[in-house]
Amino acid sequence: MIYADHAATTKLDEEALEAMLPYLRDIYANPSQPYRISREPKMALKKARETIAGCIGAEPEEIYFTSGGTESDNWAVQGVTWEIPREKEILVSAIEHHAVLSAAEAAGRRGCDIRIIQPDRGGHVLPETLKRALTGKTTFVSVMMVNNEVGTIQPIRELAAVTCETQNALQAMNSKTSGANSRIVFHTDAVQAVGHIPVNVQSNCEGVDLLSASAHKFNGPRGVGFLYVRKGTNLAPYIYGGAQEHGMRSGTENVAGIVGMAVALEKHCATIEADQLYIRDLEQQLLAGLEESEVPYGRNGEPPFAPGILSLSFPGLSGEAMLHRLDLMGIAVSTGSACDGEKTQISHVLRAINLDKMRAKGTIRLSLGRDNTSDEVKTIVGALKKITITSQGC
Amino acid sequence: MIYADHAATTKLDEEALEAMLPYLRDIYANPSQPYRISREPKMALKKARETIAGCIGAEPEEIYFTSGGTESDNWAVQGVTWEIPREKEILVSAIEHHAVLSAAEAAGRRGCDIRIIQPDRGGHVLPETLKRALTGKTTFVSVMMVNNEVGTIQPIRELAAVTCETQNALQAMNSKTSGANSRIVFHTDAVQAVGHIPVNVQSNCEGVDLLSASAHKFNGPRGVGFLYVRKGTNLAPYIYGGAQEHGMRSGTENVAGIVGMAVALEKHCATIEADQLYIRDLEQQLLAGLEESEVPYGRNGEPPFAPGILSLSFPGLSGEAMLHRLDLMGIAVSTGSACDGEKTQISHVLRAINLDKMRAKGTIRLSLGRDNTSDEVKTIVGALKKITITSQGC
Repeated sequence: MIYADHAATTKLDEEALEAMLPYLRDIYANPSQPYRISREPKMALKKARETIAGCIGAEPEEIYFTSGGTESDNWAVQGVTWEIPREKEILVSAIEHHAVLSAAEAAGRRGCDIRIIQPDRGGHVLPETLKRALTGKTTFVSVMMVNNEVGTIQPIRELAAVTCETQNALQAMNSKTSGANSRIVFHTDAVQAVGHIPVNVQSNCEGVDLLSASAHKFNGPRGVGFLYVRKGTNLAPYIYGGAQEHGMRSGTENVAGIVGMAVALEKHCATIEADQLYIRDLEQQLLAGLEESEVPYGRNGEPPFAPGILSLSFPGLSGEAMLHRLDLMGIAVSTGSACDGEKTQISHVLRAINLDKMRAKGTIRLSLGRDNTSDEVKTIVGALKKITITSQGC
Repeated sequence: MIYADHAATTKLDEEALEAMLPYLRDIYANPSQPYRISREPKMALKKARETIAGCIGAEPEEIYFTSGGTESDNWAVQGVTWEIPREKEILVSAIEHHAVLSAAEAAGRRGCDIRIIQPDRGGHVLPETLKRALTGKTTFVSVMMVNNEVGTIQPIRELAAVTCETQNALQAMNSKTSGANSRIVFHTDAVQAVGHIPVNVQSNCEGVDLLSASAHKFNGPRGVGFLYVRKGTNLAPYIYGGAQEHGMRSGTENVAGIVGMAVALEKHCATIEADQLYIRDLEQQLLAGLEESEVPYGRNGEPPFAPGILSLSFPGLSGEAMLHRLDLMGIAVSTGSACDGEKTQISHVLRAINLDKMRAKGTIRLSLGRDNTSDEVKTIVGALKKITITSQGC
């Protein structure tokens, strides 16, 4: 089996699993308890928090463990719109994952004013587009760091900067509200970015207040993720109960999962440059292979792309049928995004970048990872060639 | 180390871990994807859902996987109060876990009318108390099945029945609203019950619409739990995003955790009667040992008790100091509930049953499990005797 669906999920890193096993076996005490056997799991949580913070340039106390990226995204949206929804206006990009879009729609049903920012045809949200959309009522902006379907890297630092500048300008113009307005909260869903491209809340995502991540996208375990919350950000707790996660996200900590996440992320971050080069090279081999084989195709979106995520359209073909034919040939790829897996309509991302309907229909997403090889890429090219030739023959 | 804090967490069952390992290693495909390698994890989820449903007399499609008991409780409360909070009145018992109480308080801050039902001095919520508290505006009732601090089993079936009967009577009296009123949703936090006492949504908790459970309380893994949602119950989704859990609780499924939970619960349910007898016998040995040793103590709450949870007060002593002395003697117990671990004030449960302040201060919670032995109980008795004698000597 050739696995080319790394944007859907990744295999748990063996070292991460080894690090988890003691916490799945003998070190089982509840870390919130005051007795001695709780010290070891408590220290493990502390160490994991430090490791993860270190990987993204944050402070350990800015990392809040969650059950995954979807929860982190929902928390970001609900945490800023929870109270007095009718006075809030939130801006989200049209190419967000449904974890953000559907959470925003739910906030909309509770009275929030939801506004959608369109990307350009290359799949990027432009700072000037965001600037035009911001108003004095805006309280929240959410733009993802890497789009999960087409792989485009968004200009997060510039988007956060334009948000801050525009707010300052609006407040200066309308001085009577300047005292009352709190800072617009800027969120980025970095689920496809963390571990894959450099992410640093002090440099390339300066100005970001909230950042979501999911362990299983960077070879960590399923069921665990985190939300970075910049100090001083006004965010309501998401799950109430015990005092875990500074009272912001209660529930007995999934120590093993958190430890596994930290090990997996640390490993990714240590090799991020080399992995990027390797995966971008595989990507070029794939695209060059398709050119050489004269397979008619188009890549959706425009650079900059995150390494490995390729949205490819094959004229006259059906993405769904291609997925099944590739599956029978031992190759796992995706149509649209993984979380759209049960639906077959054209994805909201391909619609947002105005992709021609026929072209959208014939789209598959290939997402390569560091475990893929040149030989596998050759096999994928061969398979795509076979499919396009036989389909044209029909 | 003698572990007598099973109500805080339990050790992961070795068979449950063995069942999880393949899903932590090779069977890693995202179960939402349509290709062949996703079939196995998809089938594993299906089987786990059937197993868990079977253990509590539910239909598989009534089981929704969550990240744990705290999330399940929060979902129950928020899922019924999410929209139009100002028109809702919710009743929760004063002895609920903070996962319910604090979630209800949060709903209160959003405009819900929150009413607290007091238990009797024995630690039980009486059906007549609930009956008096119900009004035509009530939309939600939450009473836990087993209290986590004193171990009292609540009369859930009777409480659910009185809720239904009272609502029918109120609607008949006030016929003009009868068409508009939807059924009151009855929730029970069964985190300390599932796997420990028989729980069946068709028999001993008939009339319950929502039921929360947590895997790590019955030797399953951390970071996973479920919410039972009776068919036809009006409940908003909790986490939005993909279409997982019928669109009610999105996020890539924690397959390994879910599989581990099902194995652990199935094992518990298969031996529930024998385990109850065994643990109740240990409990009697402990109490008889204290009597024989002439250790002055009182047990808080009145029967019926769930097996293994004992809230014991020692006059003139400090529960916190006892915990630390027991810890130094190699025995892990709790003061108050685990989730109150970081706070040292008198627990809300002991206050709700009107325990004398001095007696409340000298309280520890012992929670025995099926892995404890008679020898361990003897050691615990000896340790408590030593502590009470040396403390009296001071």
